[in-house]
Amino acid sequence: MSRFIEIVEVGPRDGLQNEKTTLTPAQRVEFIQRLEAAGARRTETVSFVNPARVPQMAGAEEVCAALPADAARSRIGLVLNMRGWDRAVSTGCDEANVVVCASDAFGVRNQGATTAEQMATLAAVAGRRAAEGGPRLSVTFSVAFGCPFEGEVDPARVIDLVREAALLPLDEIALADTIGAADPWGVRRLVEACRAVAQDKRLRLHFHDTRNTGLANAFAGVEAGVDVLDASCGGLGGCPFAPNATGNIGTEDLVYMLERAGFETGYDLPALISTAEWVCGLLGKTPTASVTRAGLFPMPA
Amino acid sequence: MSRFIEIVEVGPRDGLQNEKTTLTPAQRVEFIQRLEAAGARRTETVSFVNPARVPQMAGAEEVCAALPADAARSRIGLVLNMRGWDRAVSTGCDEANVVVCASDAFGVRNQGATTAEQMATLAAVAGRRAAEGGPRLSVTFSVAFGCPFEGEVDPARVIDLVREAALLPLDEIALADTIGAADPWGVRRLVEACRAVAQDKRLRLHFHDTRNTGLANAFAGVEAGVDVLDASCGGLGGCPFAPNATGNIGTEDLVYMLERAGFETGYDLPALISTAEWVCGLLGKTPTASVTRAGLFPMPA
Repeated sequence: MSRFIEIVEVGPRDGLQNEKTTLTPAQRVEFIQRLEAAGARRTETVSFVNPARVPQMAGAEEVCAALPADAARSRIGLVLNMRGWDRAVSTGCDEANVVVCASDAFGVRNQGATTAEQMATLAAVAGRRAAEGGPRLSVTFSVAFGCPFEGEVDPARVIDLVREAALLPLDEIALADTIGAADPWGVRRLVEACRAVAQDKRLRLHFHDTRNTGLANAFAGVEAGVDVLDASCGGLGGCPFAPNATGNIGTEDLVYMLERAGFETGYDLPALISTAEWVCGLLGKTPTASVTRAGLFPMPA
Repeated sequence: MSRFIEIVEVGPRDGLQNEKTTLTPAQRVEFIQRLEAAGARRTETVSFVNPARVPQMAGAEEVCAALPADAARSRIGLVLNMRGWDRAVSTGCDEANVVVCASDAFGVRNQGATTAEQMATLAAVAGRRAAEGGPRLSVTFSVAFGCPFEGEVDPARVIDLVREAALLPLDEIALADTIGAADPWGVRRLVEACRAVAQDKRLRLHFHDTRNTGLANAFAGVEAGVDVLDASCGGLGGCPFAPNATGNIGTEDLVYMLERAGFETGYDLPALISTAEWVCGLLGKTPTASVTRAGLFPMPA
């Protein structure tokens, strides 16, 4: 049996959140349903943030209500504070993902809190969950491979954060290259170092293709033993710090690379491409994911 | 000292040959000069083919004459037959690169000859060179990772071609993913197998980013011990078999990935980006190379 790589589909959240066009909650529900029909098993569906600040993510409760529980699917909600956690619990989300910024400058500008303050929130959420139950819990360390304000982020700082998070009652720890600055050699080094301190926690990786290194970084991560990767259908999203840049690595591209090499992902690639074309049609943009633009291989003569 | 990775700049040939807009020989000369000022040490400058068939490459003699010999630079001309070799000799090219198609279907459609017939041409050119002298000689095996007509190309076939080429008096053997179908695991396997039969010949890799796997494949190749990679400034080029696809891997992207990881390439990245913007301005297109679109890291706040 070949190795299974789990892809967390982040198009409906990290993707759409960084698009100029805002989809309605009903459109987002259809997007999620199409993704799940194409094979998505874990999907970032909503963000429990203030809709006045992130209008693209308004209507989280409406989206959750429209998605009946499905034992074969996991829907993930983004959580930045205890109020977000309460919403994740009350909507019946399967998973909550807390984001902690690996640099203070990014944390203060994006979430109004330093890294230490965000770690305290994470600990409080994990404690509440341990006491009262609730969705599965993961943490994503953003800007783990570089910060648009501070520049290099010391790997030792990220390793310390992972060590600290691994002591909390949570399920998974993700390292995110939020601005697409990483190179695959650095990814391998950081994954190996984090693996050594992450105890029994699963590691996940989140790459942006801003500088075209996203799939190289994914390859390096898989080779370093990581089995869970984020990707965004159509390559949706972008980078607020690089206006002409592309977004998350495209799910089609990641599925293509992995399945061509013999890994299993559970995705139906033609259905995924159709979904990318459909959602990019709604957004009025050309898919940035290369496989959707170029087509599959082998190609018809 | 960090490891030096040699990048062969193919924008002026493989890049421009696949662009809709045709540049004049004078514009191509300026492009080459700008590339060399930005650090290019080996550059595909011309193609000795019939200008009626490939108008983008017309004026090879004019381009060569405008580039005075420079001991620190090597200019490469594409050669498909003995007439092309004679032109490479008479223009004083530093290197000639013979292309041999790894699949018969691609060979017949693109060069009017089967793989075996092209190998015979290669042997004849290598023999002439051994007898009479001339430019350094390399061979590129195109569609080595997949053919748009035949689909999969058996790695055993490519390995046999490399073994056969390694017996000839030539300097370097390149494997080309002409249609951008390769995955990095496959690259690693094929490089390792070819290394075992390539004797003292240097290996070079040529990737297209058609399905976004180009830099992952480059990373895999470097990790497998290859020190020479082709790339195209601005990500120029395209894929005649996938009209909406991108072209060769962008030199900026490759330089960014390698230098971020501590390798040396000899390139001045800001100058390279300026060159990409300049040539894409001439072509009336947006650069497809991501680094030129997104900008360098660390970015200004």
